[in-house]
Amino acid sequence: MLAINKQALYILGVDLGGTNVRAAVTDHTGKILGSGRAPSNATEGIRNTVGRIADAAETAIASAGVKKSEIAGLGIGVPGHIDDKNGVVIWAPNFYEDGLPYRNVALAEPVTAQIGLPVIMGNDANVAALGEFRFGAGRDVQTMVMVTLGTGIGGGIILNGKLWTGANGGAGEIGHIIIAAGERGGSAAFGSLESMGQIAAIVERASRKICDGRKSILAERVGYDWHLLTPKIIADAAEEGDALAIETFEETGRYVGIGIASMINLLNPEMVVIGGGVSQAGDLILEPIRRACLANGIPSLVKSCPIVPATLGDDAGILGGVSLILDAIDG
Amino acid sequence: MLAINKQALYILGVDLGGTNVRAAVTDHTGKILGSGRAPSNATEGIRNTVGRIADAAETAIASAGVKKSEIAGLGIGVPGHIDDKNGVVIWAPNFYEDGLPYRNVALAEPVTAQIGLPVIMGNDANVAALGEFRFGAGRDVQTMVMVTLGTGIGGGIILNGKLWTGANGGAGEIGHIIIAAGERGGSAAFGSLESMGQIAAIVERASRKICDGRKSILAERVGYDWHLLTPKIIADAAEEGDALAIETFEETGRYVGIGIASMINLLNPEMVVIGGGVSQAGDLILEPIRRACLANGIPSLVKSCPIVPATLGDDAGILGGVSLILDAIDG
Repeated sequence: MLAINKQALYILGVDLGGTNVRAAVTDHTGKILGSGRAPSNATEGIRNTVGRIADAAETAIASAGVKKSEIAGLGIGVPGHIDDKNGVVIWAPNFYEDGLPYRNVALAEPVTAQIGLPVIMGNDANVAALGEFRFGAGRDVQTMVMVTLGTGIGGGIILNGKLWTGANGGAGEIGHIIIAAGERGGSAAFGSLESMGQIAAIVERASRKICDGRKSILAERVGYDWHLLTPKIIADAAEEGDALAIETFEETGRYVGIGIASMINLLNPEMVVIGGGVSQAGDLILEPIRRACLANGIPSLVKSCPIVPATLGDDAGILGGVSLILDAIDG
Repeated sequence: MLAINKQALYILGVDLGGTNVRAAVTDHTGKILGSGRAPSNATEGIRNTVGRIADAAETAIASAGVKKSEIAGLGIGVPGHIDDKNGVVIWAPNFYEDGLPYRNVALAEPVTAQIGLPVIMGNDANVAALGEFRFGAGRDVQTMVMVTLGTGIGGGIILNGKLWTGANGGAGEIGHIIIAAGERGGSAAFGSLESMGQIAAIVERASRKICDGRKSILAERVGYDWHLLTPKIIADAAEEGDALAIETFEETGRYVGIGIASMINLLNPEMVVIGGGVSQAGDLILEPIRRACLANGIPSLVKSCPIVPATLGDDAGILGGVSLILDAIDG
């Protein structure tokens, strides 16, 4: 394993998604100097994915016009349960080797071997939280939790300035908090925050209301084909005042808010940052989240913990990768 | 504020309960050398309670036969939301001053003034967790969560050897995790772990089954007066094979297990320690808790986290108070 080059001027941050891998070279302030992108080829085995990570990274380095010897290291967020100490993917449901999801696959070492830079890995939602903490919405607090709302619901916990990854790298799974035991099943346990708040649940909620015969401009928007509904389409309808669409976000926000209240009651953070695609609905989802938090959490803990939108958008993951390296430099 | 006497041989631990205040003098290994007890006079104002704390402490010092100058400090667990940095009770629902529950009452300073020893305060469930961590079930791990099952449900979080008290001393409220949104209300939010698992919920569950006309030896045990039911009576009936009583613990354990699964998914601890009066039912409650955890949590996180009974019993609070002082000595 190569050691982090603490004197180096630049850092390489990488965000490995199920579809694309994105990379950027930044300076120590998180300023992006060059970036690169490649398909992640998630179903074609680890060697193929390592190659695509290298492609994106090399493009970023070339576009920044810096030398590899000037780069401190490569920090990467990976979707799954990550053993951050050993650079191993313990479990990654969206990446396949020989037709099976990754289990106990070493990733840091082959990336280092391919690209010649030290590598630090983390869970993608954990790493995005680090990015928002160092460079985004959380840069003025010491203790925050980030919640990413999307296809799944992930999280990252920063306690006294440090990412909390748990006894074996699995902490931060706020989507797997159970808030309504026995209710909707989805990509996590029955009645979990993820099952009740993920994109599929939002679409299901709106579809069910339309199928119940409720009037809504949404029905025409998708030509009565519910499979075409997306949170964006529902949010647009809500902005135009569509009651069914507004209700869909109200109900979703209520469940998400109850999950966040549970987390606030347990951890007493200074701030909660909401990111991920669904957060782009803004106050449509944030207001019901805040209301449900106040209604269900311990008042003194909830009132002292603002719930704010993420500010880095798609760059949270890349800048979180950069933060992994900067944290290692800071010791 | 007096400074902790780091060279002193002995420590004073105090557990302030709603009925009694208990104190003990120990050495650095937690060996109890003398103890004392007094009524806590919880409804008679802060000055009265400070006097009773001093009574119990002075009795413990006299019974141990040590000098005050040989005592490093007094560590005390207090039921409520505690500002541990400033020694202030932010909120304590069971202690009254002029007929109102404590709000923002300084406690550490008047105790120091009365007894002439430096004082460190903490939330009672947090402090009990510290006791189990240093001297009890958790002494071989670095990261553990203790859950106390009783009239209410409290908790304490130890991360990498340190008590996590949150941004303003309110962390660890595992009883306020919501697991079944909108269900039973009790002393915490609707459908919270506390509401679904507290003693009142256990008794309610058994009572309801009996009122539904189910056959059970429990009915005779309390002469058909449900108000006399206690977890102990229900546990005894369960030990004798009473199906209704067994079912009551099964259902309760299921809810508690779901709440603990949520917490494990979020924090990935090495161990969960179950204490409090209800935990004396042993495997009657522990087995359903473990089963519900496995069924609802992330398998890799739950399987790596044994759920074990507390070992210090009633002394967890006192020895936790001792731990507060030892932690301060260790720096």
